[in-house]
Amino acid sequence: MPAATDANVFTIGLLGAGNVGAQVARTLVEERELISARVGTPVKLIGVAVRDPETPRDWKIPGELLTTDAEALVDQADLVVELIGGMETAGSLIERALGRGAAVVTGNKALLASRGAELQAIAAETGAVLRYEAAVAGAIPILRPIEESLSGDRITKVMGIVNGTTNYILDQMDTTGAAFADALAEAQKLGYAEADPTADVEGHDAAAKAAILGTLAFHAPFTIDDVYCQGITEVTAEDIEAAAASGYVIKLLAIAEKRAEGAILRVHPTLLPRTHPLASVRGAFNAVFVVAENAGELMFYGQGAGGTPTSSAVMGDLVSVARRLRGPSAEAPAISSEVELPALPIEQAETQYYIDMEVADREGVIAEVARVLADHHVSIESMRQPGSVSVDGEVDTDNDAGAQVQIVTHRARERDLDDTVATLKGLGVVKSVNSVLRVEVEQ
Amino acid sequence: MPAATDANVFTIGLLGAGNVGAQVARTLVEERELISARVGTPVKLIGVAVRDPETPRDWKIPGELLTTDAEALVDQADLVVELIGGMETAGSLIERALGRGAAVVTGNKALLASRGAELQAIAAETGAVLRYEAAVAGAIPILRPIEESLSGDRITKVMGIVNGTTNYILDQMDTTGAAFADALAEAQKLGYAEADPTADVEGHDAAAKAAILGTLAFHAPFTIDDVYCQGITEVTAEDIEAAAASGYVIKLLAIAEKRAEGAILRVHPTLLPRTHPLASVRGAFNAVFVVAENAGELMFYGQGAGGTPTSSAVMGDLVSVARRLRGPSAEAPAISSEVELPALPIEQAETQYYIDMEVADREGVIAEVARVLADHHVSIESMRQPGSVSVDGEVDTDNDAGAQVQIVTHRARERDLDDTVATLKGLGVVKSVNSVLRVEVEQ
Repeated sequence: MPAATDANVFTIGLLGAGNVGAQVARTLVEERELISARVGTPVKLIGVAVRDPETPRDWKIPGELLTTDAEALVDQADLVVELIGGMETAGSLIERALGRGAAVVTGNKALLASRGAELQAIAAETGAVLRYEAAVAGAIPILRPIEESLSGDRITKVMGIVNGTTNYILDQMDTTGAAFADALAEAQKLGYAEADPTADVEGHDAAAKAAILGTLAFHAPFTIDDVYCQGITEVTAEDIEAAAASGYVIKLLAIAEKRAEGAILRVHPTLLPRTHPLASVRGAFNAVFVVAENAGELMFYGQGAGGTPTSSAVMGDLVSVARRLRGPSAEAPAISSEVELPALPIEQAETQYYIDMEVADREGVIAEVARVLADHHVSIESMRQPGSVSVDGEVDTDNDAGAQVQIVTHRARERDLDDTVATLKGLGVVKSVNSVLRVEVEQ
Repeated sequence: MPAATDANVFTIGLLGAGNVGAQVARTLVEERELISARVGTPVKLIGVAVRDPETPRDWKIPGELLTTDAEALVDQADLVVELIGGMETAGSLIERALGRGAAVVTGNKALLASRGAELQAIAAETGAVLRYEAAVAGAIPILRPIEESLSGDRITKVMGIVNGTTNYILDQMDTTGAAFADALAEAQKLGYAEADPTADVEGHDAAAKAAILGTLAFHAPFTIDDVYCQGITEVTAEDIEAAAASGYVIKLLAIAEKRAEGAILRVHPTLLPRTHPLASVRGAFNAVFVVAENAGELMFYGQGAGGTPTSSAVMGDLVSVARRLRGPSAEAPAISSEVELPALPIEQAETQYYIDMEVADREGVIAEVARVLADHHVSIESMRQPGSVSVDGEVDTDNDAGAQVQIVTHRARERDLDDTVATLKGLGVVKSVNSVLRVEVEQ
């Protein structure tokens, strides 16, 4: 583990190299220049503390970075990223880091939901920073928006799908009619549920997140013990079917709501109308719904788990903390020129297109139109002739007022599309091109 | 305009008192204690610059705060909130504030989309802070998540419904089959569109936002001149109908996408599959879809306009900037105890409930069940008997295996619900209570 020599360098010590940790290490090594540019000062990963350096990992960490001496690493780093998980070791290493004034970024929801206020107090004493965006809803920016963007508003309710495992299981039960046990087995087979699924299916994981969300939303310290918690193990296929028959879907929600007398924090299976924005959050995705007095209703949606998505949240905390501690300005360099990225003209855009036209109603027309597209390297994804029963070449109407043809292309260059349309307009069999619109299908 | 006397006080000068400005003034006056607590130092509104103090406003601003001397106000405030709009006056006042090192919070998208880099350069020179969350998508926290939460990731595409007027018009055309002109007239009547709707319907407003989003997402300075812009005035009822027939909806999107050679910024009517998360964003709501290399797909949804929602974004910038400049810690006090807000037990929760039970299949049973609920102050929103053709009192099956009854209650206290269920279980006609689940219907 090489020590940082240049006092100008902002040093990072990483604890843990599981699927999130390995991705964070990879980004810090492979994207070191980008990350340093974003911070405004050189950033360097000085060590990765692991239990066993020989364990195979998602990304092979350079041998000289690996260490088994986590404490020595904590004592050297400007910022410590804790991704070991668990309470004891993680807790004492975070205390040690904050105690000496080092910044800490963690995703440890269980620790925060039980000892968050205590750790924050240590940080306040030494002036250290503790951030943990990755602890709730993986890649979704939710803690920072609550703490900063909504800091001038009063949040009244937070309601989230914050556990991908249970959302996947309930979703499977809803779409296939499977029983809980079968859906769980399927989730385990696909790696969405752990061999011991207790923390997920009993709602403990969601309860930790409810405590964190409630704490930040209501500016009062709550722990997991304040959260009423009911898992999904007793939800039956019959419940799901009956709910569906009445227009509801069953989701495991983490809810924090403010009442005049206090806050109620609860995790339980919940019937939601199928029209509710949270109802359509499928599979392993997460979403958090926030209601504030002035802002009204907000929703944040994205991937709730997985090494790569979660590493994005960790890196966001790391860069923004480093920027504030060491960057040229306390605020983000809002309009910077990190890279030369010229604005390209629309002719270089590439997307799908919809073309609506009127063609002569006679044999061979479609073939002629298709030929023009092919000549310009524009391929057809789908074609529709509203007046026809088939798209096998000819329309079925036999008046001579012309026939309507609607085409959706595959991805094509705007320039090629422009040329295509110009050529189509000059074609004898094309009476008129009524509409050309762009189509975006990728989500 | 009383001058601030205490150097400890963080002073705010507000320029403009339109519908957003009046709401900001109101929050700063009525919620002064809350805002000061959130910042960690006393915050004081020292003046509101307006053209005509006599103009009636959404909230009556105290006379001693009103001034027509905007420059004098700018010269005294620690933070200037610019909500005048327009280019000339707003631009020179912001320059003046940043030039003397005062922080500036603004929602002026047109100004930022043309002179953003220049203003940011002035801020960098004096060490001033310039924030503008309210400039894009109203109440939705989108700029801060892009700048900070995603600062350790690579954004590849941003795609947003960022103009409520056009979204309302297209939505009306889609649901009612109206022509553009009629939908616009309706929007004007309801106050969703201005008397001169050009900036909205021609896409200029969305183009300014595309420039801002692209600049922050790609760390390269773009202006509105870099944005290809096509409005919705030529979208016909036939286009919408044909799109619908093929499973698409037409939305005006602001798109910023990164290509190897550069960035393409474009605003145009776009066909989206009805299954796309942006497709179901209705009426005056906004939503921004972000794709990043590690985070994957994210979506941010909420109210895009209106004085009160937009004021939430302005206040969020104000509080977080003030906190960083003057608060006890550079970071947000993540777990603070601003108010005494005890965690309440689940018995005090209030929500709707779903009860599924098996009852004896004979006359009078429903009346008996309904009586138990009424006795416990739990009222019935809907009742369903799956084996029945009606809910008028009795089930139609005539076996004696019992009949199923499903009830959704109105909002009730958990304690009352518990008592209700206990009583139902003791009722002779109730064979079993199979499920009791909570229901959340409010969005």
